[in-house]
Amino acid sequence: MSKVSFDNRLMFTYESKSFPGVNKVAALVRQDLSLVTGFHAGEYIRGCKCRNLIIYGTVDRSDYLKELEENGLIDLTDVRGKWEVYSFQVIDQPMEGVDHALVIAGSDKRGTIYGLFHISELLGVSPLVNWNHVYPKKKKNAFLTDGVNTVTREPSVRYRGFFINDEWPAFGNWATEHFGGINAECYERIFELLLRLKGNYLWPAMWRSNFSMDGPGLESARLADEYGVVMSTSHHEPCMRSGEEYSLLRGESSIYGDAWDYVKNRDGIIRFWRDGLLRNRAFENVITLGMRGERDSRLLGPDASLEENIELIRDVLKTQNNLIRETIDEDVSKVPRQIVLFSEVEEFFYGNRETKGLMGDPELEDVTLILSDNNCGYTRTLPDRKMAQHPGGYGMYYHMDMHGGPYSFKWIGATYLPRVWEQMTQAYDFGVRQIWVVNVGDIGTQELGLSYFLDLAYDIEKWGGTDAAITQRYVDEWAERQFGGMLPLSGRNKIKKILWDYTGLLEKRRHEIMNSDTYHPLHFGEADRVLATSLEILKEAAALRKKVSEQDMSAFVSLLYYPACGTANLMKMWILAGRNKLYARQNRIEANDVAQEIDECVREDAALIEDYETVDNGFYKGFGKSEHVGFVNWNEEDNRYPVKHLVYGAHSPRMLVSRKDDEHYMTGLEWCDHPQTWRDMLRPDVDKVEFDLISGSDKPFKYRIHTDCSWLEFSRTEGEVKKRERITLSVNKALLDEKVTGVFLVENIGYGTATVTVEAAPMGGPEGLYLESDGYICIEAEHFSSKGDTAGAGFKVLTPYGRSGSAIKVFPTTSDFKGEKKRPFVEYRFLASEDGEYELTFELAPSTPVTFTPEQYIGFAINGGRIRIENTVRQPDIPFFLSPQWAIEARDNVKKVTTRVKCVRGENTLTFYGMSPGIVLERIILVREGVSLPESYLGPKESYKCP
Amino acid sequence: MSKVSFDNRLMFTYESKSFPGVNKVAALVRQDLSLVTGFHAGEYIRGCKCRNLIIYGTVDRSDYLKELEENGLIDLTDVRGKWEVYSFQVIDQPMEGVDHALVIAGSDKRGTIYGLFHISELLGVSPLVNWNHVYPKKKKNAFLTDGVNTVTREPSVRYRGFFINDEWPAFGNWATEHFGGINAECYERIFELLLRLKGNYLWPAMWRSNFSMDGPGLESARLADEYGVVMSTSHHEPCMRSGEEYSLLRGESSIYGDAWDYVKNRDGIIRFWRDGLLRNRAFENVITLGMRGERDSRLLGPDASLEENIELIRDVLKTQNNLIRETIDEDVSKVPRQIVLFSEVEEFFYGNRETKGLMGDPELEDVTLILSDNNCGYTRTLPDRKMAQHPGGYGMYYHMDMHGGPYSFKWIGATYLPRVWEQMTQAYDFGVRQIWVVNVGDIGTQELGLSYFLDLAYDIEKWGGTDAAITQRYVDEWAERQFGGMLPLSGRNKIKKILWDYTGLLEKRRHEIMNSDTYHPLHFGEADRVLATSLEILKEAAALRKKVSEQDMSAFVSLLYYPACGTANLMKMWILAGRNKLYARQNRIEANDVAQEIDECVREDAALIEDYETVDNGFYKGFGKSEHVGFVNWNEEDNRYPVKHLVYGAHSPRMLVSRKDDEHYMTGLEWCDHPQTWRDMLRPDVDKVEFDLISGSDKPFKYRIHTDCSWLEFSRTEGEVKKRERITLSVNKALLDEKVTGVFLVENIGYGTATVTVEAAPMGGPEGLYLESDGYICIEAEHFSSKGDTAGAGFKVLTPYGRSGSAIKVFPTTSDFKGEKKRPFVEYRFLASEDGEYELTFELAPSTPVTFTPEQYIGFAINGGRIRIENTVRQPDIPFFLSPQWAIEARDNVKKVTTRVKCVRGENTLTFYGMSPGIVLERIILVREGVSLPESYLGPKESYKCP
Repeated sequence: MSKVSFDNRLMFTYESKSFPGVNKVAALVRQDLSLVTGFHAGEYIRGCKCRNLIIYGTVDRSDYLKELEENGLIDLTDVRGKWEVYSFQVIDQPMEGVDHALVIAGSDKRGTIYGLFHISELLGVSPLVNWNHVYPKKKKNAFLTDGVNTVTREPSVRYRGFFINDEWPAFGNWATEHFGGINAECYERIFELLLRLKGNYLWPAMWRSNFSMDGPGLESARLADEYGVVMSTSHHEPCMRSGEEYSLLRGESSIYGDAWDYVKNRDGIIRFWRDGLLRNRAFENVITLGMRGERDSRLLGPDASLEENIELIRDVLKTQNNLIRETIDEDVSKVPRQIVLFSEVEEFFYGNRETKGLMGDPELEDVTLILSDNNCGYTRTLPDRKMAQHPGGYGMYYHMDMHGGPYSFKWIGATYLPRVWEQMTQAYDFGVRQIWVVNVGDIGTQELGLSYFLDLAYDIEKWGGTDAAITQRYVDEWAERQFGGMLPLSGRNKIKKILWDYTGLLEKRRHEIMNSDTYHPLHFGEADRVLATSLEILKEAAALRKKVSEQDMSAFVSLLYYPACGTANLMKMWILAGRNKLYARQNRIEANDVAQEIDECVREDAALIEDYETVDNGFYKGFGKSEHVGFVNWNEEDNRYPVKHLVYGAHSPRMLVSRKDDEHYMTGLEWCDHPQTWRDMLRPDVDKVEFDLISGSDKPFKYRIHTDCSWLEFSRTEGEVKKRERITLSVNKALLDEKVTGVFLVENIGYGTATVTVEAAPMGGPEGLYLESDGYICIEAEHFSSKGDTAGAGFKVLTPYGRSGSAIKVFPTTSDFKGEKKRPFVEYRFLASEDGEYELTFELAPSTPVTFTPEQYIGFAINGGRIRIENTVRQPDIPFFLSPQWAIEARDNVKKVTTRVKCVRGENTLTFYGMSPGIVLERIILVREGVSLPESYLGPKESYKCP
Repeated sequence: MSKVSFDNRLMFTYESKSFPGVNKVAALVRQDLSLVTGFHAGEYIRGCKCRNLIIYGTVDRSDYLKELEENGLIDLTDVRGKWEVYSFQVIDQPMEGVDHALVIAGSDKRGTIYGLFHISELLGVSPLVNWNHVYPKKKKNAFLTDGVNTVTREPSVRYRGFFINDEWPAFGNWATEHFGGINAECYERIFELLLRLKGNYLWPAMWRSNFSMDGPGLESARLADEYGVVMSTSHHEPCMRSGEEYSLLRGESSIYGDAWDYVKNRDGIIRFWRDGLLRNRAFENVITLGMRGERDSRLLGPDASLEENIELIRDVLKTQNNLIRETIDEDVSKVPRQIVLFSEVEEFFYGNRETKGLMGDPELEDVTLILSDNNCGYTRTLPDRKMAQHPGGYGMYYHMDMHGGPYSFKWIGATYLPRVWEQMTQAYDFGVRQIWVVNVGDIGTQELGLSYFLDLAYDIEKWGGTDAAITQRYVDEWAERQFGGMLPLSGRNKIKKILWDYTGLLEKRRHEIMNSDTYHPLHFGEADRVLATSLEILKEAAALRKKVSEQDMSAFVSLLYYPACGTANLMKMWILAGRNKLYARQNRIEANDVAQEIDECVREDAALIEDYETVDNGFYKGFGKSEHVGFVNWNEEDNRYPVKHLVYGAHSPRMLVSRKDDEHYMTGLEWCDHPQTWRDMLRPDVDKVEFDLISGSDKPFKYRIHTDCSWLEFSRTEGEVKKRERITLSVNKALLDEKVTGVFLVENIGYGTATVTVEAAPMGGPEGLYLESDGYICIEAEHFSSKGDTAGAGFKVLTPYGRSGSAIKVFPTTSDFKGEKKRPFVEYRFLASEDGEYELTFELAPSTPVTFTPEQYIGFAINGGRIRIENTVRQPDIPFFLSPQWAIEARDNVKKVTTRVKCVRGENTLTFYGMSPGIVLERIILVREGVSLPESYLGPKESYKCP
C-alpha cells in the first residue's frame, strides 16, 4: 500500500511551464493543508531528497508527468485529450530521493486545478474555506493511501457556472467595501470559489459594472483566463461586451454612434461588437449571440410583428457570426457560442403557425441554445425529440435569485435542494448538458444551493438519479464539510435539521412574498405549524451558537445562523402579523400583546442582518442589504413591514369561545350568538378537540363549563381568563359503542352562556380506506394503495419534495404517455359519505409544459370508469410563461387542477395515470358538493386511513 | 287693555273640588313663576283683596268659573264638552276686591292643566324646567295683557305620548339612582314632563318592571290618573298587564297556571287578563288587545300557518272584548282600545291571497289600529282609502330609540326633525290621528325630538304643513326656550347651528352603525367634510361652555354639550379610524399619529359621558350608559371600538404623491409606478387641485417639483416632508383659450420621480346645463330646471331634508298618480359627453310603500321619450318590512333605484314624474357606461352647472 503523509516533510513541485493559474491553485491548496496539519509544505527542488511529494501538472505541459509516464509509473491514456479530467495517484518512489508521492495529472488546465483541489477535499477542507472562513478539522497524522487513486470522468455538463446578478445593493456594496469596486481583486475571490465548487463558467456582474473595463482594464478577463474560468456574458450582452458598455462609449462623436439600434446605427453597432470580440479573443469565452434592447428590454417596440423581430435577429446572427469569423476563427463552429432563449426571445425561436421561428436557422447550427427556467426554479421548455439532435447542444439558465416577475427574491438564499434535483436532473435527461448557469444574485447565503447545483452539473450520476433522498445525503455531506470542525455530531445533526427546516419553510413560501395573509392564522393549524418550526429554528440555532468558537463564528453565522434565523424570524413575524390582524378583527385583547411581539421580530430582523454584516470583522458586509419584507409589487418598490393592530377591549368582561383551528367564535351573548356543533370526534383518529376561552376585554371574565354528558372530559372546567386559556375536550372512545351527541355550556359568569353540541363516534372503519370527514378527503400522493408500471416506466415516490414533503413522479422523466395505450398508474382508495358530485383537486408541482406548446396533461379515472385527460394549462391560447397561471403557481409553489367527479357512497377508487412528462403529483383533495373548505394556503391535513 | 302682573301681590285660587292633579300642576306653575319673578305667589282666600289673581278650574267643576260665567265675564261655550281645550283670559275686576285676573278654564282635567302650563310657556319657562333644570330668564315686571286671550282648539291627535323602552342600562340605572326604582316617585317626574310637553298618553317601562305592581302596588297607576295621564301598554302587553307580570305570577300552584299559552292554559290566561282589567279599570286607559309570545316573540312556532295564527288572534280578541264588557262597560265601544300592527302582527292584519286577515273583523270595529314605522323613523303601511273609514281610527308607533333590527340606537337622541316632520305630517294626512306614541328609550337626550313630536301631534297646523323650513323655526324657538336665559343671541345662534349640525351628522349615519368603513377617507372629500363639521361642533361647544354659568350647566350639558359633542367626537373617532386604516394600508408614516388621535377620542368618549353623568350632582346619572360604538350585530353584542393600525416606515426615504381625494398614489419609483392624469381642471368650475406629498418612512424625503408648463402654478415647489405636505396646483384659467395638456414631475430627490399629466380647459360651457365630468353627472333633486303641476298637486322643494340637505316631494302627500294620465313633473337638463348608455341612479328617501302591497313606483323619461315606471321594491315577492332592502336602506338612510338610459352627446333632458305617494327624491346620478365611480357613502358632489 502506497501512502503519502501530510507531515512537516511534505513538498510541492513547481514548474514554471505550468499554467500560472494552476500554480496559483497549488498555492491555495498548500494553504488549505496548513489549516489541517499546521505545517506549511515546502517547495521541491528537483534532485533533492523528499519524504512526501505532491507532483502536479497538466498532460503534455509537465516534465515531471512526462518522466513518470515514460517510466511507466503513471498511465495517462485515459486523461490525455479529455475535458477537465485528472488522474490522482498515490505512488511510492516516483523519483530518485522521493519516498512517497501524490501525482496529479490534469487533462487540461481545469482538470489539473480540480485535481489539486481534490486533495483539500479529501482532507476535509471545504470549498468554502476562503469564501466563508470555514476552518477544517485539524488532523494530527494526515495521509492518503493509494486507496484514493482514481482517474476521473469528464464532467456531466461541459460549462457549469453562475451569474452574479442584481448586484445592488448587496454584491456591489460588498465589493466596494472589500475591494474598492467590482474589479479583478474581487473577481479573484469569485474565480477561486467557482473552481473549488467545480464550476468553470461565469456570467459577471453587469448592472453598473463592466467586466472587461473595470479590472482595471482587461485585468479581470485576463485573470479569469489565467485561472481557467470560461467567461461569458448574460443573455442580453452579445460579443463579450457588458450591457452597460455601450452607454459609456456612445455619443455624437463616438465611433460607435449614439443609438443602440441595429437598423439605424448598423455600422456603429457592428463596430462596437467587432471591437469587443477583438478585445477578448485572447481568452477562453463562450460568446453570446443575438440582441435585446438596452437594460434587458424588448428590442423592437410593442407594435413590431413577430416576423419583423425574427428577421432582425436573423440578420444580427449572421452579422455576429461573420464578425467572429473575421476576428477569431474562420471556422466559426470551433468558437463556443450561445444564445439564450429568455423572455420574449423564446417566442422568436419557436415562432408560431404563421411565422417560422429561428429554430433550425443555419446561423445557430453549432450555437448552444440556452433555455431558461420560469424565474423561480422550474424549467420552461426543454428540447423535444425533434430538437434533440441540435449540434450546439443545450444550456439552462436557472434562478436562485430573481429581480423580475412574478416576484423578486434577492435576500437570503431560498433554494430547496429537491426542487433543483428534480428539475435539473430532468433537464439533463432531456439533453440539457452543454451549459448550466445559475443566477445567484450576490452569492452570499446562496452557498448551499450553489454547491449542489455545481456538484450536480459536475457529476450527475452521483447527485442526480431517481431518488430525491439523494439530496438528504448531499445536505449531510455538505453540513459535515462546513461544520465538521466546529461542533460535535449531535450539534451537526441539529444543523442538518435546521438546514432542512428553513429551506422547507421557503419551499412553501419565499421571504419577499410572505405576508400576514399567506397562511390562515387558525385553519388546519397551518400557521401554528410554520410558527412552531420557526421558533424551533430560532431556539436551536441560538443554543448551537453558544457552542461555536469565535474562529468558527464566521462560517456558522454566514452558512447557518443568519440564513436560518433570518428566515425563521421573518416567518414568525408574518405569522404573528396574521394572528394580530385576525385577533384584532375579533377584538381579542391578546391582539395587543401580539403587536408587541411583532415589534420584537422587526427589531430582530435588523439585528440579524447587523450580526451577519459585522461577524468576522465585516467579512460579509453588504450581503445583507437586500429589501426582503412585504413586497406588494414584483420588486421591492412600495414594500411594507406588517401593520400592527391594536384594540380597545369591550367595556364589560367579554368571552369568546373558539376552536383553535376555526375563526368562528361564540360569545355566549343572548341575541346574536351562533351555537356550534363540533364533529371532529366522529373521526376515528380524533378523541380531542382543543378550544380557547378568549377575553375580548381588559376586564377578565370568570367561566364555568357545564355538561350532563359523562363521556365528555375537560382539562379545566372553571377559572378566570385574562387573555386566553386553552381547554382540551376529550372523549374516551373505548367507552363508546355507537355515535353519540352531547351538549356542553361555557358560561361567562354574569354575562352569558355559549352552547356547543359535540358528536362523537367509536374508533374503527373499513380497512385501508381514507375516510371523508367534514365533507372532504385529502390524500398525500405518496399514499397510493397500489401501483402499476409499464415495461419501461413507473411512478416513484419523491421524498423529500415540495410543499407537503413528498410527491410522486413517473420515471424515466422523458416518458410521454399521452398517445400510449399502456400507462403507469397509481390507485387511491377512499370512503365517500354520500353519492354525488365531488370537487376533485390535484395539487401538482408548478412545473411548466416541457414543450413550447401549451399542453401538459394529466389523466385519471374514478371507480374504473373511462380515463379523463385534462390539460393543466388553463389558457392554452397564450404562452404559458408570463401568463396569470404561471404567476400564481410560481408564487404559491403549487399547481392546482380542479375538476368534478361522481362518487358513490362507500368505497371509491381513484386512478391517476402517467401522462405528460414533468408531472409531479403532491396531494389529492376531494370536497363534497356544497361544502366549502375553510380558507387556507396549504390545505387540509391528510384524512384518516383506517389501518 | 286688561293686564295681570306677576308681581309680589300675585295669588292663585285653590278649590278642593278641583282635580287633585290640576292643583298639583298649579303648584308647579307657581314654582315656575317664582323662577321668573323671584316672588312666590300666595293662595287666594275668597273675599280677600287681591291685586293679581290666577283663577283656574275645569268647566263644571269650579265655583269660580261658574260665577264668572254667570256674571258674563267669561264665555265657556267653546270649551264645554271639548277634548283638552282651555280658555285663557286676562280680565279686570273679576270679583269683588280683585283687580286683575287671569282666568283659565279647561274643558277637562288635561285642558285645565295645559292651560295652567300655558302661563309658564308665555313667561318663557321651558317645559324642560324640571327635567333638565332649564332656568328661565328673570323678568322684573312680568305681566300678561288680554292680547294673549284665547280659546284653544282640540289637539290634532287625540292620544299623544311616548314609550319608555329598552330601559336598561340607562333608564333603569337612572331611576334606581334617583328614586330607588322605577316607581311612582319616578313616574311623577315623567308625568310632569309628558304634560308640560302637551302629551297625555304613556307606555311605561316594561323590561324587568311592572307599572301596576311597582308603584309600590298600584300607586303609579293611581298617580297617572290623578295627573290625567292616560296609561296604556306596549304592543305585546294586553289587558293592562305588564309583559313581565305573568312570569312573576305564574307557577304550578298559581291561579294563572304555568304557561303563556292561550290554547293549553286558556283558563289561566283569561283569568290573568280579567284580573288586570279589574285592577286598572278605575283609571283612564287605552287597553291593548291581542297577544304575542313572551318577551315580544312570535306567538306560535315558526311552523304555524298564517291562518292558524289569525284564527288564534280572532279568538283572543273576542275573549278580550268580552272580558272588557264584563269588567268595564257592557258597551265596549266606549272603552278606548288599541291593537298594534307591529312585527308579524302586520301580516296577520292584512292576510294574504289565500287567507283573509283580521282587517274588518267585527271585534276590531272600534279599536284603534296602531301602525308602526320601519324601526328607524319611516312609516310602514298607512291606511289606504278602503281602510280610511275604520271607526276606531289609526295610531302610529314611532321610534326615536330602537332595540332591534336592522340596528339598535339607544344612546344619544339621533332625531333629525325634518324626517319626523315629513313622515308624521304625511301619516296625519293619511288619517293617522288617534294615537301617536314614540319610543324614546330612556328619554335622556331625546328632548328635542320628543318635544317636536308632541308639539306636532298637539298642533299639526302650526308645526306640520308643506314647508320643511318649519323645522328650522321650531329649532329656533326650542333653542330660545332652553337657552334664552343663559347666553346672548350670538351664542344661541351658535347653539342652533350646532343642533342642526349634530343631528345632520346623525341623519347621514347614526352613532351605533358608524364605523371606519362608512365614509371613504378620501373620495369626494366626504370624510373630511364630516370631520370638519365634527371639529367645529367640538370647538364651538367648548367655547360656549366657558360662557355658561354653573347654574345653567345642567341644561347646557344635557341638551346641547353632551349630545352634540358626544356625537361629534364619535364621528371624529371613526373618521380618524378610517383614515388610520387607509394610511396604514398605504404605509403612510402619519398613520401612527392618527392612531394616537384615536386614543384621544376614545378617552373623550368616556369623559363626555362622565361629564354628563356628574353635572348637576349626577342629575342625569344612568342616562349615558348605553353601548354606542361599533355595532357588528343588530344590537351591541360583540361591538368594538376602532382598531388602531400602526406601521413601520420604509427603510429609506419614501414619497407618496396622492391627490387629496383619491386613494391611488404614486411613489415615483422606477419600475412599478403608475403615472396619473388629472382631468379635474377640464371642469369649468375647477382651477385648483390639492395633492399631498406623503412620507412612507420615518426618514424625511426632500422633494422638488419640476414643470415646463408656464400655466401651472404650485403653492410650493421644494422642501422636505416628514409626514405630509399639502400642495395646491392651480391654473389661471383666464389665460387659457383652448384645452391644454401639461406634465409636471415630483422628484423624491435621490430616489425617484413621479409624473403627472394635467389637462385643463378654459371656463364656460352651455348655459343652464349640468356638465358631465370624469364620466358622471350628479344633480341635487332641488335643482330642476322647470316643473309642471297638475290641478291639485305638484312638486315642492324640501329644505332642510335628508343626507344631502334637500329633496323634492309631491304635495298633497296622499296623491297617487300611478293610474293617472296627468302627472306633476320636474325636468333636469345636462350635457353628456358621449352617445350611449348611462347608469341612472335616483337617490330617494328610504321610505316604505304606503300600502301593504310591496309596490312603490317612480316614473321618469329621458329626452321626451316614453315614461318608464319602476317599482322601487326590489323583491316584491316578500314583505318589504324585514327584507334585505329594508335593512340596507334603513341603515344607509337612502334608497337607490338604479336603471340604465340612453343619452345623446350634448344636451339631454331627464323628466321625473309624480307617481306613488311617499316618494322623496334627493339626488340624481348618471354614470357613463364603463366608468366606475370611486367608492363612497354619500356619492359625488353635485356637478357644475354653467350659469
